[in-house]
Amino acid sequence: MRPDIAIIGAPWDEGVTYRPGARFGPRAVRTASYQTAEWHLELEIAPLDVLRVVDYGDARCLPGLAELSHTAIRERVGEVATRAIIPMVIGGDHSITWPSATAVAAAHPPGSVGIVHFDAHADTGTNVWGNLYSHGSPMRRLIESGVIAGRNFVQVGLRGYWPPKDVFDWMREQGMRWHLMGELRDRGVVPVIEDAIAEALDGPDHIYLSVDIDVLDPGFAPGTGTPEPGGMQPVDLLHAIRQIALQTDVVAMDVVEVSPPYDWAELTSQNAHRCLLEAISALAVKRRDGGSAGNRASG
Amino acid sequence: MRPDIAIIGAPWDEGVTYRPGARFGPRAVRTASYQTAEWHLELEIAPLDVLRVVDYGDARCLPGLAELSHTAIRERVGEVATRAIIPMVIGGDHSITWPSATAVAAAHPPGSVGIVHFDAHADTGTNVWGNLYSHGSPMRRLIESGVIAGRNFVQVGLRGYWPPKDVFDWMREQGMRWHLMGELRDRGVVPVIEDAIAEALDGPDHIYLSVDIDVLDPGFAPGTGTPEPGGMQPVDLLHAIRQIALQTDVVAMDVVEVSPPYDWAELTSQNAHRCLLEAISALAVKRRDGGSAGNRASG
Amino acid sequence: MRPDIAIIGAPWDEGVTYRPGARFGPRAVRTASYQTAEWHLELEIAPLDVLRVVDYGDARCLPGLAELSHTAIRERVGEVATRAIIPMVIGGDHSITWPSATAVAAAHPPGSVGIVHFDAHADTGTNVWGNLYSHGSPMRRLIESGVIAGRNFVQVGLRGYWPPKDVFDWMREQGMRWHLMGELRDRGVVPVIEDAIAEALDGPDHIYLSVDIDVLDPGFAPGTGTPEPGGMQPVDLLHAIRQIALQTDVVAMDVVEVSPPYDWAELTSQNAHRCLLEAISALAVKRRDGGSAGNRASG
Amino acid sequence: MRPDIAIIGAPWDEGVTYRPGARFGPRAVRTASYQTAEWHLELEIAPLDVLRVVDYGDARCLPGLAELSHTAIRERVGEVATRAIIPMVIGGDHSITWPSATAVAAAHPPGSVGIVHFDAHADTGTNVWGNLYSHGSPMRRLIESGVIAGRNFVQVGLRGYWPPKDVFDWMREQGMRWHLMGELRDRGVVPVIEDAIAEALDGPDHIYLSVDIDVLDPGFAPGTGTPEPGGMQPVDLLHAIRQIALQTDVVAMDVVEVSPPYDWAELTSQNAHRCLLEAISALAVKRRDGGSAGNRASG
Amino acid sequence: MRPDIAIIGAPWDEGVTYRPGARFGPRAVRTASYQTAEWHLELEIAPLDVLRVVDYGDARCLPGLAELSHTAIRERVGEVATRAIIPMVIGGDHSITWPSATAVAAAHPPGSVGIVHFDAHADTGTNVWGNLYSHGSPMRRLIESGVIAGRNFVQVGLRGYWPPKDVFDWMREQGMRWHLMGELRDRGVVPVIEDAIAEALDGPDHIYLSVDIDVLDPGFAPGTGTPEPGGMQPVDLLHAIRQIALQTDVVAMDVVEVSPPYDWAELTSQNAHRCLLEAISALAVKRRDGGSAGNRASG
Amino acid sequence: MRPDIAIIGAPWDEGVTYRPGARFGPRAVRTASYQTAEWHLELEIAPLDVLRVVDYGDARCLPGLAELSHTAIRERVGEVATRAIIPMVIGGDHSITWPSATAVAAAHPPGSVGIVHFDAHADTGTNVWGNLYSHGSPMRRLIESGVIAGRNFVQVGLRGYWPPKDVFDWMREQGMRWHLMGELRDRGVVPVIEDAIAEALDGPDHIYLSVDIDVLDPGFAPGTGTPEPGGMQPVDLLHAIRQIALQTDVVAMDVVEVSPPYDWAELTSQNAHRCLLEAISALAVKRRDGGSAGNRASG
Repeated sequence: MRPDIAIIGAPWDEGVTYRPGARFGPRAVRTASYQTAEWHLELEIAPLDVLRVVDYGDARCLPGLAELSHTAIRERVGEVATRAIIPMVIGGDHSITWPSATAVAAAHPPGSVGIVHFDAHADTGTNVWGNLYSHGSPMRRLIESGVIAGRNFVQVGLRGYWPPKDVFDWMREQGMRWHLMGELRDRGVVPVIEDAIAEALDGPDHIYLSVDIDVLDPGFAPGTGTPEPGGMQPVDLLHAIRQIALQTDVVAMDVVEVSPPYDWAELTSQNAHRCLLEAISALAVKRRDGGSAGNRASG
Repeated sequence: MRPDIAIIGAPWDEGVTYRPGARFGPRAVRTASYQTAEWHLELEIAPLDVLRVVDYGDARCLPGLAELSHTAIRERVGEVATRAIIPMVIGGDHSITWPSATAVAAAHPPGSVGIVHFDAHADTGTNVWGNLYSHGSPMRRLIESGVIAGRNFVQVGLRGYWPPKDVFDWMREQGMRWHLMGELRDRGVVPVIEDAIAEALDGPDHIYLSVDIDVLDPGFAPGTGTPEPGGMQPVDLLHAIRQIALQTDVVAMDVVEVSPPYDWAELTSQNAHRCLLEAISALAVKRRDGGSAGNRASG
Repeated sequence: MRPDIAIIGAPWDEGVTYRPGARFGPRAVRTASYQTAEWHLELEIAPLDVLRVVDYGDARCLPGLAELSHTAIRERVGEVATRAIIPMVIGGDHSITWPSATAVAAAHPPGSVGIVHFDAHADTGTNVWGNLYSHGSPMRRLIESGVIAGRNFVQVGLRGYWPPKDVFDWMREQGMRWHLMGELRDRGVVPVIEDAIAEALDGPDHIYLSVDIDVLDPGFAPGTGTPEPGGMQPVDLLHAIRQIALQTDVVAMDVVEVSPPYDWAELTSQNAHRCLLEAISALAVKRRDGGSAGNRASG
Repeated sequence: MRPDIAIIGAPWDEGVTYRPGARFGPRAVRTASYQTAEWHLELEIAPLDVLRVVDYGDARCLPGLAELSHTAIRERVGEVATRAIIPMVIGGDHSITWPSATAVAAAHPPGSVGIVHFDAHADTGTNVWGNLYSHGSPMRRLIESGVIAGRNFVQVGLRGYWPPKDVFDWMREQGMRWHLMGELRDRGVVPVIEDAIAEALDGPDHIYLSVDIDVLDPGFAPGTGTPEPGGMQPVDLLHAIRQIALQTDVVAMDVVEVSPPYDWAELTSQNAHRCLLEAISALAVKRRDGGSAGNRASG
Repeated sequence: MRPDIAIIGAPWDEGVTYRPGARFGPRAVRTASYQTAEWHLELEIAPLDVLRVVDYGDARCLPGLAELSHTAIRERVGEVATRAIIPMVIGGDHSITWPSATAVAAAHPPGSVGIVHFDAHADTGTNVWGNLYSHGSPMRRLIESGVIAGRNFVQVGLRGYWPPKDVFDWMREQGMRWHLMGELRDRGVVPVIEDAIAEALDGPDHIYLSVDIDVLDPGFAPGTGTPEPGGMQPVDLLHAIRQIALQTDVVAMDVVEVSPPYDWAELTSQNAHRCLLEAISALAVKRRDGGSAGNRASG
Repeated sequence: MRPDIAIIGAPWDEGVTYRPGARFGPRAVRTASYQTAEWHLELEIAPLDVLRVVDYGDARCLPGLAELSHTAIRERVGEVATRAIIPMVIGGDHSITWPSATAVAAAHPPGSVGIVHFDAHADTGTNVWGNLYSHGSPMRRLIESGVIAGRNFVQVGLRGYWPPKDVFDWMREQGMRWHLMGELRDRGVVPVIEDAIAEALDGPDHIYLSVDIDVLDPGFAPGTGTPEPGGMQPVDLLHAIRQIALQTDVVAMDVVEVSPPYDWAELTSQNAHRCLLEAISALAVKRRDGGSAGNRASG
């Protein structure tokens, strides 16, 4: 029986510019739970009774070899996405979204995939100190290469002091839309996510959901490489993911930047784990209610 | 002079299903403060000038011996409750609420005690892998044994993926009421607690207040065994406890599931400590204002 | 070229009454970032292009020698403040606000400086166990000595169980104003800060901004000496600082009580770092918009 | 092809009397290495080219259910041992040696198995506070039940303040032999191990090797439940294991009492991992040199 | 019945020049064990059956008030020592040896007490940055004041880069004797301790034993303020203490510089705890064998 | 005045194959001390009075860009070495020895530099998974390129399970010499170092000393990427470094593989700091005694 969802690890962290360790993210996130997901209390569903979720192992990432590692990620995600299985990728640093979203977009008609991207950082630098594979530039790669249209690339939770103005100018030129943390604070999460969905689906049919765990305030997610104070709370992030997965056709997801050496008591990897599970549960609701999720979605 | 409140430790954690360590909770919570409680700034009271609080030591819990340990807890809590002193029990895992609430209920007329229970988990499993003493089942024991009526057992803060549907079906059959975390997020804490109080006192006169520290988001309470992202903030939990202690006749309280090996900088044990102190302070306000608290309450 | 702002370290923590370690605060806060402050996303400014910020090193604090160390802090801050440069002082414990604010007030006309003070604690004890240099009493020293008028000393975020009633009575006699955490919870941060500004500037022209990092909930700031559960979130504290720096003439600032031995993954020092950067950014906005900031402010 | 060695996890820690956590030992020890064991530098052998080692998973240990869990361990170890495969068991607390060694002894002729037991503690208590399944009493269970003859039960590394005199009297009556840490300090490890081997094989043909990681000094093994200062160094423990595995017919081994919540940077689990690997490597040498190891050993 | 030994806490750490935290030493060391001291395996004695050991609480040390705190320590130790009870003092930083040894010497005839002092540092500075109460100068205070004769002040384990030459010159002038870590490495512990005993008792009849836990290598004692790599192993330090307590008339002891915020898994406090217990056990042996220990010693 | 020694940071860790973090080594090692190096107690010298030591900052290592980063290290070390100043390089991972030793060798006549290399691992792999810049292969690069003759490349402390046999075969073909940890255990450190010196200087005149901190047992050095149990003690490593620096003409040194995210209480960085200081002190002794050290060495 064909799976609906396949978990893939992308243990690559040589795109980081500060604290490394996200290479151990897949191992940590996979084990960051005290139970199987029997019953989603708020959605009232047993997600794993409705959807078939498998673990498709890790992409073969090789220390020191960025191009080969990115290729391995792209291929592994592609093997899943082209079979109309939803890939859920555990990073690794955010650079892995470049090969991952490229593979997903290639499995769908051109222009049919938009991205909702939760993050403290825009990750749209030209490059970082010359490194095209940096975790500070994957979103630029995706837009430059035409994989995702700038106007359907929507960012939520940005804050802090990076990137600089010229990068935001470029982002505006691409038609990108973003919602700063301040907007979330002032308007609340639900209406902002409504807008983000509308913007991402202004053209496309499908959503690639990318969650940088550092969108959470570092108090909830200390185990990450470039923590930026003043972020979201888990209760809001989980609700936002639910909102998106219930209302859009999520065809792929990643959760990135969990760095276990800086984590404590599995705080950060648990949040990443629940982000995945929230999406799975919401997709299960849609399936149960006759909506689309995973392979049937493309039927 | 008879005390009003007696602190009791219940250093038992062999009911846990995942991360142990709560056996060291009593020691950690007792020392988790930098000051004596001189003056509650918001309630404007010196609680320890109004109420006499003593430490009644730990129940004699013996590693590997669940029944004997539970008996020791029941007896020790009973020695206090039957003297119309309010027991405040520091766990230990949540299984200790079984003997503790049993002893408290026995000290009052049948049907006169309701429970407000803060927790991420319902703890109403039939048993967990066959263990009747599990921290996943004490609330079922209490209802099955008739100690507390299901309809007066009110739960606040539930979230995540456990227990499964059949357990919720059983809970409904018992008339239990619960308020999921999502409801707290949407309605706010104050009105939900109003409802919880009304439900718990729909019949009974007294309240047993049980606080599983994992009702807090793990970012505030990393030192616990089964952390579930997306929980309450301390500022809200403390206010909720105050609301209950001011408006109801709290005759007993427990704070459980503080696991020091997973704690950092005493974060979790400080929260537990302040939960107790908030209740003590609110009870002091009632006493000062001529209301009931502790031994006079039963007079 | 004269700087606008000078960072000064005050590595003194022998005023603490509980967990020490804040002596290592200056070293930790200085390095608590993964980037230079290129662009403030919400204020849309490159703060360091607008304002000249220098590091003026540490005051020479000597273990065991409180008076000499306080003198060194007062002199070093004075060297900056008297040159119409804004000192931004990194503590150390909160006792350093006594010499620091004394030096700042001396550089301005009498009565022209008010204080907005974020903290869980009022720090207005007569003394603590006889120690006049305690971190529990600097605010009393400042008012007693006439450096700051009680009525222009405004405190935000107080909570917990200290100081006792007689200290609050004294505070009332001095005309001090304060906003408990409960008020922040009920009214929201923005209107409370509006009030605080009005109270602090009820007479004075300038603001000394003092941020005890323990005003944050310990979940966000574990690395501090006397953590009190139930505090602010970083997103709110940063916004409050912005509000004050945009609307008042901030002539000095300190951030204190970061204790690295109790910190994890730099959580607390990052928050302190961003508090300083938020103020710098807001001051840059004012400068850019023709308003006053730093040396020109006094011109 | 039949394996030579099977790794088995025994995730049970409810026999502990102090710090729990060893239930997570199997997961931690299995991943506590940065490489596969390509080449033992001192023994000059590629152990996994010579011996076939498989992972036989964990025994099904159920929280709160000591008897069932011990039975599961005994059966799982028995499934391996009765097939002439060497079980290498990762604890779990030391109580697991009771079912494990019982299963191993049952797979060999009566009286043919001796034990060499590295530990800070004798673990020969009658019971601990009444618990027959305590980690303080498994060795007594093994001797009382006749599984191992007292005179062939040899302990190395004992120190500290437990068990009391009457237990040592009982041990003497059983003919047990032991070598205190002081003897290791004074005579050196090699000659003491020579004696231990002779004593354990004074009758038996086979050795069950049991390593409580707390035989190491806590500086090397902080992640354990009952650490006792003044222990062995890893370089000596590894050599001792090699000496035993080269010179005797080791038919089973366990490594126990690794408690990950108290570990740091995997220090303790790495030591446990290398203890197993040292034994595997030495057994590989014997196989290569025509000696016996594992299944062929019983041929 | 008069006790033989009294434990006293000296929670004072404002003499430290680097990492503070030793104020929490008494609390940590008192609880750093998983058992009562039932039976010393190597000395074959039940120490607490032979000697009566009581806890005499903490000296009242007040933050910021060095002189008062030192006075409190001196008085509390004096209350014990003058009753011919052996004080065992838990620091606190090493400055506490000044008041403690002063009180002990005052309880015995002039010149009758020598000191054996285990430490990485000589602690004989004139002062440290002007602080006479520094933990770098207590030994100078003791010699200057004539409390202990320089020639009977023997130091063991010194290493590293402090104090400077002129301090060693002064030490030589006083006739002090010391044994560098290199000598321990080359000659072994036992003969060096033999010499140290002879030197300390070259005149005096009694020994004050002072153990700075940083004499251990930081790998065994990370929780200390001024760690110096290249130190002793616990197995050797414990043996050295035993040797001294068995062969001399130890009339007082202290263990200092345990800093819990830097400790991990209680490593350092356990070592300190066992140092005390080793001395207690050896003293018990002497008492049992008719020798002197504690109050009878002075009879 | 020309310096004798220049400290250089090489914050590069993308050569690691397992736990990253050594990029933060330079920052951690530079601050890992509580004092200036006033007086070496065993060598009886004030090293910084005799030798002029400067900090030459960090080589500009750029995340993701191995070749550029290695070039920056080579150039920066070369700037020092060609001026007859002794470079002391703080890693970073061990791959930095490739550019560093290349630069040093280039500053001396061909064949005139031998290497003594302390490490758990030989680091002589052809490459690791295809990465020529891996920390597992720098020594091969140095020998292949002719920078150092194989026969003058001497390794001390090797242990564990890597590299495989074919790499050792290659090492033998190059005439490399090595001393396994087992040899140190059996013969003691002093004679082995005597041999190592003779082997390294069997032809060359100068020594490049490379210390991988993982040559220490992980108990002393938890903060490293590929820890291997069973290593050296600090007291022995420091003595070995002293022996080499006193007896040979050390013209360069590096200390590598300190990974602060895995360190605790600065244990590992302190050891690295003292390794450098031990060499500096020994070189100072030689200078004082008229021997050669640093720039005069080449005169």
